[in-house]
Amino acid sequence: MNLLDPLPDARSAERVEALLTRDGMRIERIVSHGQASPPDFWYDQAEGEWVVLLSGAAQLRFADESAPRLLAPGDWIDIAPHRRHRVDWTHPTAPTVWLAVFYR
Amino acid sequence: MNLLDPLPDARSAERVEALLTRDGMRIERIVSHGQASPPDFWYDQAEGEWVVLLSGAAQLRFADESAPRLLAPGDWIDIAPHRRHRVDWTHPTAPTVWLAVFYR
Repeated sequence: MNLLDPLPDARSAERVEALLTRDGMRIERIVSHGQASPPDFWYDQAEGEWVVLLSGAAQLRFADESAPRLLAPGDWIDIAPHRRHRVDWTHPTAPTVWLAVFYR
Repeated sequence: MNLLDPLPDARSAERVEALLTRDGMRIERIVSHGQASPPDFWYDQAEGEWVVLLSGAAQLRFADESAPRLLAPGDWIDIAPHRRHRVDWTHPTAPTVWLAVFYR
């Protein structure tokens, strides 16, 4: 199985697929295509999330930082539980592929 | 932080770096550069390992399969605890980057 090929068409909505689910952890592939979080929406997750951008580009914003972060392929970040964040932007004309590991 | 840039020089030995360690799980980046498992060596791990190849190329062999698997970028596999496997080959002239999630 391959993370990058084939890719689902995410132009109408983000596509999320669980690749592995085990007690206390879950690995997901998320494909975005131009989506962003709704205005004023912030993720506030009970789980930790380690996430890497594999292709495309995205802008991620944290409530506790003044400037958004621009993510390129290979960039990863560990998001602590309840650290508020949102996706400001994903590449409008190419798929953006994320690999996320959620953990308790 | 980026998984692909910079890369450590792994020509003399495989380079393993823990990116996240939490109770019952661990995320590692492994960089190979031509290494293979020693002859007749088999990994026999107590933990499960979900692993994706991010760049380069590798040949992975399972004791319970007759043919090795050739892995290309994006290829992922979930290796159950105690499923015996070995790395037959990694690309001799380019770095091979693995992202591995070990879990109990």
